[in-house]
Amino acid sequence: MLVLHYAPDNASLIVRLALEEAGAPYRAALVDREVRAQDSAAYRRLNPVGLIPALETSQGVVFETGAILLWLADRFGGGLGVAPDAEARGDFLKWLFFLSNTAHADLRQLFYPENYVPEGAEAGHHDIIVARMLRHFGLLDVAVAADPALFAAPSVLSAYLAVLMRWAVLYPEGQRRWFRVTDFPALAALARDLEARPAALRAALAEGLGRTPFSEPDPACPSEGSAL
Amino acid sequence: MLVLHYAPDNASLIVRLALEEAGAPYRAALVDREVRAQDSAAYRRLNPVGLIPALETSQGVVFETGAILLWLADRFGGGLGVAPDAEARGDFLKWLFFLSNTAHADLRQLFYPENYVPEGAEAGHHDIIVARMLRHFGLLDVAVAADPALFAAPSVLSAYLAVLMRWAVLYPEGQRRWFRVTDFPALAALARDLEARPAALRAALAEGLGRTPFSEPDPACPSEGSAL
Repeated sequence: MLVLHYAPDNASLIVRLALEEAGAPYRAALVDREVRAQDSAAYRRLNPVGLIPALETSQGVVFETGAILLWLADRFGGGLGVAPDAEARGDFLKWLFFLSNTAHADLRQLFYPENYVPEGAEAGHHDIIVARMLRHFGLLDVAVAADPALFAAPSVLSAYLAVLMRWAVLYPEGQRRWFRVTDFPALAALARDLEARPAALRAALAEGLGRTPFSEPDPACPSEGSAL
Repeated sequence: MLVLHYAPDNASLIVRLALEEAGAPYRAALVDREVRAQDSAAYRRLNPVGLIPALETSQGVVFETGAILLWLADRFGGGLGVAPDAEARGDFLKWLFFLSNTAHADLRQLFYPENYVPEGAEAGHHDIIVARMLRHFGLLDVAVAADPALFAAPSVLSAYLAVLMRWAVLYPEGQRRWFRVTDFPALAALARDLEARPAALRAALAEGLGRTPFSEPDPACPSEGSAL
């Protein structure tokens, strides 16, 4: 039995989507952000980096969203990824890493600027990172349009992309909107396709994300725990 | 025949180390940074992200350092990585992604602050990122000490780590030193082990890195192209 350590609408959502698509047996264990449980000694034993998610498996704990997605894709197959010996494996890996180390890494800077820039520099930093993110989404829109099958659900690429789009619309709270899903037609289609799938409906229900969590997202209303 | 698009002492070096360890037949094609060839239309056709490296393969172009390393490890085996069905695969993947999306991503911020922060914020940003990097290297030192076999050469984890350590000592040029290899005993041992290997000697010779490129690095003196 896999155990997903999660907080609602955190990066664990991407993994939950993959687990639901795989039909993998798993249990979700809340990491309570309101008491910063991700910093506790118990959680650091699972993930010394202190970030959510972590996945307990029979082969030990896996952390890092991209690593968990790839581990699940290689283990469960079923269209979650491209098999290691398949022709398109390189295409699959390059976009998975780009999502992880560029799109996701930059978006994290937008949400937690205090971890990256000195006081007073937040506004200028925000504008720079927003411009970077729009370039990243532009590249991804072109890539998805060029090879829709590579990114299509149930691929973990689809789940990763859709959650990043959701966050780009919603967070940080109270900021002016800089990202519109409809400006990126191939990404918008991917978001609509994903959220119509039973697996996504189950994940959205579990974390209180509403009926259009990716194409027209509303803030999460989780039944337990906090998204922030 | 694989074609590695490289610049001396750029992230392509990590891939070159893996290619040399694998004994893979490859040709190195210089991307001339002095004329910003990485921004050219020809290079963007290989890698739309515009970063070095890119690897041409019989199955198309792979880019993103982490993706190329994993593709090579799964293809060539021989200790470059942990096989997809092996027990320690999750451990291998989680540290590969951590190196890619956290350690490498943060180091890039230190080298190209103008891509991340507004003018005037560079000094404060530098201090914040340096503190982050020292935490990352600390976590990695603990991880390597706990499981040396996972990280040991010829693993791509070893190559990735050693090159990040090299850069942390050398770049950006003219800045005060903030990273000492010897402060991290497990990482220092890994660096010394790697640079004694014939594969590393060949890579160092090709890119003008000297005899101790990881444990006591000197600036690159490449026979062609520029490291910066």
